[in-house]
Amino acid sequence: MKRRNFLRTTAISVLPAISPLIPSVSAAQPNQAPGSPIIRFFGDGEMFEPADYITELQKIQLNENIIRDRYGAGGTIEMLEKKFSELTGKEKAIFMPSGTMANQLAIDVLSGNNTKVFVQDTSHVYRDEADAAQSVFQNRLMPLAKNETYFTADQLRNAIESLPEEEVFQSGIGTVSIENPVRRTDGRMVPLDEIKKISAYCKSKNIKLHLDGARIFLASGWSGISIKEYASYFDTIYISLYKYLGATAGAILCGEKMVIDKMPHLMKIHGGSMYGNWANAAMALHRLDGFEERLQNSIKRANEIFTELNKESNIKITPLESGTNIYNIALSKGTDGSKLKDSLDKNFNIKIPPFNKENQSKLMVNETLLNKPADQVIQAFKKSMSV
Amino acid sequence: MKRRNFLRTTAISVLPAISPLIPSVSAAQPNQAPGSPIIRFFGDGEMFEPADYITELQKIQLNENIIRDRYGAGGTIEMLEKKFSELTGKEKAIFMPSGTMANQLAIDVLSGNNTKVFVQDTSHVYRDEADAAQSVFQNRLMPLAKNETYFTADQLRNAIESLPEEEVFQSGIGTVSIENPVRRTDGRMVPLDEIKKISAYCKSKNIKLHLDGARIFLASGWSGISIKEYASYFDTIYISLYKYLGATAGAILCGEKMVIDKMPHLMKIHGGSMYGNWANAAMALHRLDGFEERLQNSIKRANEIFTELNKESNIKITPLESGTNIYNIALSKGTDGSKLKDSLDKNFNIKIPPFNKENQSKLMVNETLLNKPADQVIQAFKKSMSV
Amino acid sequence: MKRRNFLRTTAISVLPAISPLIPSVSAAQPNQAPGSPIIRFFGDGEMFEPADYITELQKIQLNENIIRDRYGAGGTIEMLEKKFSELTGKEKAIFMPSGTMANQLAIDVLSGNNTKVFVQDTSHVYRDEADAAQSVFQNRLMPLAKNETYFTADQLRNAIESLPEEEVFQSGIGTVSIENPVRRTDGRMVPLDEIKKISAYCKSKNIKLHLDGARIFLASGWSGISIKEYASYFDTIYISLYKYLGATAGAILCGEKMVIDKMPHLMKIHGGSMYGNWANAAMALHRLDGFEERLQNSIKRANEIFTELNKESNIKITPLESGTNIYNIALSKGTDGSKLKDSLDKNFNIKIPPFNKENQSKLMVNETLLNKPADQVIQAFKKSMSV
Amino acid sequence: MKRRNFLRTTAISVLPAISPLIPSVSAAQPNQAPGSPIIRFFGDGEMFEPADYITELQKIQLNENIIRDRYGAGGTIEMLEKKFSELTGKEKAIFMPSGTMANQLAIDVLSGNNTKVFVQDTSHVYRDEADAAQSVFQNRLMPLAKNETYFTADQLRNAIESLPEEEVFQSGIGTVSIENPVRRTDGRMVPLDEIKKISAYCKSKNIKLHLDGARIFLASGWSGISIKEYASYFDTIYISLYKYLGATAGAILCGEKMVIDKMPHLMKIHGGSMYGNWANAAMALHRLDGFEERLQNSIKRANEIFTELNKESNIKITPLESGTNIYNIALSKGTDGSKLKDSLDKNFNIKIPPFNKENQSKLMVNETLLNKPADQVIQAFKKSMSV
Repeated sequence: MKRRNFLRTTAISVLPAISPLIPSVSAAQPNQAPGSPIIRFFGDGEMFEPADYITELQKIQLNENIIRDRYGAGGTIEMLEKKFSELTGKEKAIFMPSGTMANQLAIDVLSGNNTKVFVQDTSHVYRDEADAAQSVFQNRLMPLAKNETYFTADQLRNAIESLPEEEVFQSGIGTVSIENPVRRTDGRMVPLDEIKKISAYCKSKNIKLHLDGARIFLASGWSGISIKEYASYFDTIYISLYKYLGATAGAILCGEKMVIDKMPHLMKIHGGSMYGNWANAAMALHRLDGFEERLQNSIKRANEIFTELNKESNIKITPLESGTNIYNIALSKGTDGSKLKDSLDKNFNIKIPPFNKENQSKLMVNETLLNKPADQVIQAFKKSMSV
Repeated sequence: MKRRNFLRTTAISVLPAISPLIPSVSAAQPNQAPGSPIIRFFGDGEMFEPADYITELQKIQLNENIIRDRYGAGGTIEMLEKKFSELTGKEKAIFMPSGTMANQLAIDVLSGNNTKVFVQDTSHVYRDEADAAQSVFQNRLMPLAKNETYFTADQLRNAIESLPEEEVFQSGIGTVSIENPVRRTDGRMVPLDEIKKISAYCKSKNIKLHLDGARIFLASGWSGISIKEYASYFDTIYISLYKYLGATAGAILCGEKMVIDKMPHLMKIHGGSMYGNWANAAMALHRLDGFEERLQNSIKRANEIFTELNKESNIKITPLESGTNIYNIALSKGTDGSKLKDSLDKNFNIKIPPFNKENQSKLMVNETLLNKPADQVIQAFKKSMSV
Repeated sequence: MKRRNFLRTTAISVLPAISPLIPSVSAAQPNQAPGSPIIRFFGDGEMFEPADYITELQKIQLNENIIRDRYGAGGTIEMLEKKFSELTGKEKAIFMPSGTMANQLAIDVLSGNNTKVFVQDTSHVYRDEADAAQSVFQNRLMPLAKNETYFTADQLRNAIESLPEEEVFQSGIGTVSIENPVRRTDGRMVPLDEIKKISAYCKSKNIKLHLDGARIFLASGWSGISIKEYASYFDTIYISLYKYLGATAGAILCGEKMVIDKMPHLMKIHGGSMYGNWANAAMALHRLDGFEERLQNSIKRANEIFTELNKESNIKITPLESGTNIYNIALSKGTDGSKLKDSLDKNFNIKIPPFNKENQSKLMVNETLLNKPADQVIQAFKKSMSV
Repeated sequence: MKRRNFLRTTAISVLPAISPLIPSVSAAQPNQAPGSPIIRFFGDGEMFEPADYITELQKIQLNENIIRDRYGAGGTIEMLEKKFSELTGKEKAIFMPSGTMANQLAIDVLSGNNTKVFVQDTSHVYRDEADAAQSVFQNRLMPLAKNETYFTADQLRNAIESLPEEEVFQSGIGTVSIENPVRRTDGRMVPLDEIKKISAYCKSKNIKLHLDGARIFLASGWSGISIKEYASYFDTIYISLYKYLGATAGAILCGEKMVIDKMPHLMKIHGGSMYGNWANAAMALHRLDGFEERLQNSIKRANEIFTELNKESNIKITPLESGTNIYNIALSKGTDGSKLKDSLDKNFNIKIPPFNKENQSKLMVNETLLNKPADQVIQAFKKSMSV
C-alpha cells in the first residue's frame, strides 16, 4: 500500500524539478561540446534535435527507400502498422496524430452506446486530455484509486457493483481503461497479476478493456513481460511513437480489425486525417528495429553505473517500487548538487535534472546511456562530486 | 463533521425501507377507509391519485378559469412563471418537463464554453441524471465531498486551485451546482453560511452558480430562510412542481432574462418542448398559493405530535442534524413495529413506512399531517402501540 | 408532377390565413354561444379548452379508473402503449413528451453510427425541429424533393448512388425518414406505391426506415389504408397524441422491442423523462376508442356537406390531389367572405378561417363536424351566404 | 451563368482522369530519367518524394537552423505562424494538422451557439469533410448554389430572409463559409465583387465569414488580388501547407486573436494537438519564401508555352472561365493522345494526365514548369505530337 502512496507525499515537490510530461530539458541547450556524444538522464528515449533527426531520416531513406502515403494509406506507414500488429499480436494497427486521439477513439468505439468508462485517477486519460472524454466524445470517466498507480480488480468490481445503489437511472458500462506504466506516478507499473484479474473480470461482464501503453516498452523492459503478453489482456492498445521511438509525433492504436476499421472515418471527422505521414512512420519503424535490445542494454548499463556509484558514501541511487525508468537520487548533506550537475554537463556532456533543497532528484534511464561506456559515466560522476 | 457522515453509515440499510426517490408507497394501496382523510408519513407533499387530482383541477377551473398555452407560451403557464419569478426574485422563469432538463440546461448555458462543473458527490445532478451531463450536454462533472451533504467553500477553492497541478492541458471552469436540501442524505441542508462563502468565492472568480432547489421549499420551511434569500446567492434556481406542489410532472427554472431566454430553443432541440402544459401549471399555481403557510403548520403539527409521543417510553422520534422533513423513529425492543404500522393504517388511515430489524424507520413530514388534528394522531399512535 | 408543386405556388400566400402548425384559432375566442355545439373547420381534431378537457377526464376517470404511472412506467400509460403496439402491429410502443423527441430518437437509434439521414425537404424533421438533428443528435439530414410532398424511390436511389461521386470521404447512410401526410404541403399523402418501393429498396440496402406519422390517422382515413399496413413498411412509426386524440401533449413511438427498449434511457438523458404522464395517456387512450370510425363519419359528413354546397353557384369546395383533411374553398367574386365567416360564427357556432383577397380559403375536416347534422351545416352556409 | 454550369456537364467524365483531390499521379512512378528535372502538368505545386523532401529539409536546416516546438509552441512553428499572420493581415495564425480541422474549428468558434452555416454546395466543407460539421461539431450546413462555383450575395440574402417562412422554430445563423478557389469546379474562382457584397451583407447582419483558402495562392496568382485583400473580407482564413508549399501535411488558420486563442484547447480535445510539428513548419516556411514570385513566373511560362502550342493545328489549350491553374487541352481527331503522353514522359520527363475518348484532358500549371525553359517544353510537345 505504501508504495502506491508516492504521488501524494513526494511527487508534487519534485514535479517542478522534473516535469513528467516535458521530457527534454535540453531543447534550450544546443551548446553541446562538439563531437562528444551526450547522455541525458531525463526523457524516455532519444528525442532528436532537428539536425540529428534529419540526418537520421537521410540515413533511413538511403537504406530503406521510404514510400510516401496518402492520408495514411500505403507505403511506409502500412509497414509500420503491420509491424505493430505483429508486435502486439493484434489483428490490425493504425497510425494517429496523437495519443489523446488514440485513447479517446479506442475508448469511444469500444464503449458503443455505453457511457461509463473506468480509469485510474492518475491516468493520462483522466487528467491530461483536457476533458476530451466528456466534451467531445460524450463519455463519463469514473476515476478509481485516488492518487494511486492502479486500482485493483476488487476495487473495480466493487465500484461497478455499487452503482445500482448509487444511481437511480442506470446507464451502461462501456470500457475500462488502464495506463501502464503511469507517468503521473513516476512511471510505476500496474502489476501483471492485477491486470489478469481485471481482464478476467471484464471479460466475464462483457466490458471492454483499453491499454494506454504510451510507454509500454518501458514496462516491458523493466518487468520482463512481453508487449504481446500485456496486449493480450486488452481489446485495444495505444503506443506512443515519439516518446522513445524518435518520431516528432504520432501514435499507434492496435486492436481487432472490426475496431480499427472504424478509425479512418473517425479520424477524418475529428480533423485528424493528415495528408502525408511517412516521415514519422519511417523514423519510428527504423528506431523500433532493435529498440527492445537497446533498452535492455540501457537497463544493464544503468544497473552497472548505479551499483558502482552507490558504493560512494555521498550518493544514493534507488529504484522506485514497481518503477520503470525513473530512479531516486539523493546526495549527502555536504555535497553540492548544483556543482555536480554543472560539472557533469560542462566537462562530460552528461545531463541530469537539478536537485531540490533536500538534495534529491530523479534520474531517468534511456537509450542515451549507451552513448558512453559505463566506466566513463561512473568516473564522470566521481570526478564531478569531488570538485 | 459527524453529522455529514450519515449516508455512509446508515442510509444504505434504511434505503429499501424508504426509498428517497419513490415518495409515495400508497400507489398500490387504494383500499383506504372511505370518507376518512389520510395522513401519509412519507413523501414530500400531497401527491394526488388521479381521482383526487381531477377533482382538484375541476375546482381550480371553476374558480380561476384556466387558460391554455401553446408550446408553453401564454395563459396559465405564464402566470405560473411570473409567480415563480417573484418568489425567487429572479428576472424570469420558465416551465420545463423535468428537473433533469432544468438542471442540465441551466448548467450548460451558465457554463458557456467551459466544461468543468463542480457538484456534490451525493447530488441529483451527479448521481441521478443518468450521465446526461457528459453524454448529452458534454460537460465534465467534478464531484466533491464524497458521501457528504455538502462541500465547503474551502474544499471548492482547494479543488480549483489544485487543478493546474493535476492537469497539464487546462480547461475552463463553468459552473458550480449545489443541491439543497440533498435527497440522498435524507433531506439534509447545506448551511447558509457555507452557501454565502461559496457564492462570494464564485463571484470573485467569475464562476456561475446553480441551485438544484427541487425541494427548496423544505429547506426554507425548516431553516426559516426565505426562498428569495436562497436564490439570491445563485445565478439560476430550479424548483420541482410535482414533489409537493401537486403537478403530475414539471419543473421551473428561474434566472436572468439573458439565460432564460435561451431555454425555449434548447428545450425544442432536446425534444422537451411540449404542446400544452396548462394542467400542470394550473395545479402548481393553485397549490403554491398558501403552501408556505401550510408547510409551517405541518412542521408545528409534527413537533406537537412528536413531542407528545416522545414522552412514551417505547418510542423515540428525533430530527436529523441539519435535517428537513425526515425524522428518525425508533421503537423499544419489545414493541412490534409491524403491528403498529398495520394498526395505524387499518384503524386510523395513517400510513407509515415499515420498520427495519433494529426497529427503526423514518417518518416524513408533509402537508397531509394537516388532515387530522394532532390529538387524533397522538392517540392513534398510542392506541396502536398498545395493541 | 403538377400536383406536387402546390407548396411553391400557393402555400405561402395562404399560410398566414391558416398556419399549418397552429391548428386552433379558437384559443382566443372563448365567447361561444352557450349550450350550442361547435363545429370548427380548422384543426385536425377536437382540441379541448381546459373546461371541456377536465370534464372529459372526469368522465374517463369515473368509467375507467385511471391508474397513475411513475416516470412512464405502469398504469394507464402502459395500457396506451399496448394499444398502440396492437394498432401499428409493432412489438412495442412508448410514450414521449413530444413528436420532435420521438422523431429524433427513432432516427438516431435506427441510424447507429451512420450519420446520413434522407428526408423530404418539406418534412417536419427537416424544417420544424430547429436543427435538433444536427445540433443535438449529430446526424446529417439530406433533403430530397425540394418543396414537394414526397421523393420517389428512384430519387432516393439516385441520391444514394451518386454519393461516391459527390464526396471523397464516405460516411454511412443511417435512416430514411418519411412524413406522411405532410403538413407543409397541406396534408398531402405519399402514395402507398412509392412507400412500398422505398421500403423494398431500403431493405435491400439494409437502410432503416422511419415514419413520421404524426397525422397517420388522417392518411389512413382518406386513403383507406390501415395504420397497420402503413406501419408495416417502416421500422418505427411516431403518432401524435394531441393533434386529434385530445391529449394536451405527447407522442407515441412504436417499433421493435430492441429499438424501443433503448428509449427510456435516451429520454432521461435528454431531459424528457417526466414523473407522471397518466393524464395525457388516459385522454388519448379514451379518445382513440372509436376514433377511426368517427373520422370515417366525419369524412362522409364532409362529403355530404361539400357536395350539397357545390351545387350553389357562388361557392366551390374541392379536395386537394392526394390530399387528406384540407379542402380548397373559393367564393364567387361578388360574395363577401368576411360576412360569411362572421355569420357562420355568430349565428351558427360554425368556425371557418378567413378568406384571402382572391376569396379563397381552406377548410379542414375533423371530428367536430359530427357536432351538428349535415343539414344544419348546409343551411347555415346557405343562409350566411345570402346575408 | 454558363461558365458556372461546368461541373454538371463535364466534370464527372473528366474526374477519373484527373481526380481533383489526388494531385500527384507520380507516386507510383519513381522510375524517372535520372539527372533530368521533371515537369508535372498535374498537382497544384511541388509535392516531394521522400528523398527530395529530406534533401530539401537538410538544406533548410543547414541554412536556417530549424528550432523544434513542443505541442506547436515555440521555435520554427511560431515563425511560420507569424509569417502567415503578416501575409493575411490577421492578428494571429495557428498551425493545425488538417484543413478539415481548420475549417471545422473556425466555423464552430465563429458560430458560437448558432447552428446554421451557409456554404457552397460544391465546397470542401460541404462535400469532403465526411459529415464532420454535423456529426462532431453539431452545426447545420445549408448548401447554396447547387453544382455552381459560388452563390451570390443575393442568393445568400434570399436564403436567409426566407428562413422564417420555411421553419417554425427558428435557430440562429452562425457563419457563412466560402471556398475560393473551388476544387470541385476545377479551381474556378469566386468573383471579388461577389465576395465584397457578401462580406458587406454579413457584416450588416452580424454574421461571421470564413474563407476556405486552401488554394488561395492560386486565386491570388491568377486574379492578381493579394492574399491580404482576400483575407480582409473574412473573419478567418485557412490556407493549406501541403498542396503547393511542400509540407507533408498541415494547415494554417488565421484570424483575430480572440478566435485563434481558443484553438489550442479545441485542437487538444479533438485529438489534433501533436507533439512536434517543426518539420512541416520549416518546409512550408522555406517554400513560402518567394513562392508568389515563382507562381507568377510559372503562369508567364505557361502562357508562353500554351500560346506557342496553340499555333499548332492539332492542339488547343484554353483557360477555364474564372479559372486558375487548370486548363482544357484538346487534340485534333487524328492525334494520338496516348502516344503524346508517353513520348513526353519517356523522352522529355514531362508528365501529363491521360486523354479521354474525346481526346480532351486538363493541364495543371504549377511550379514544376520552371524546371525547364519554355522552349524545351514547346519543342517536347511538338516532337511528341509528330511521333
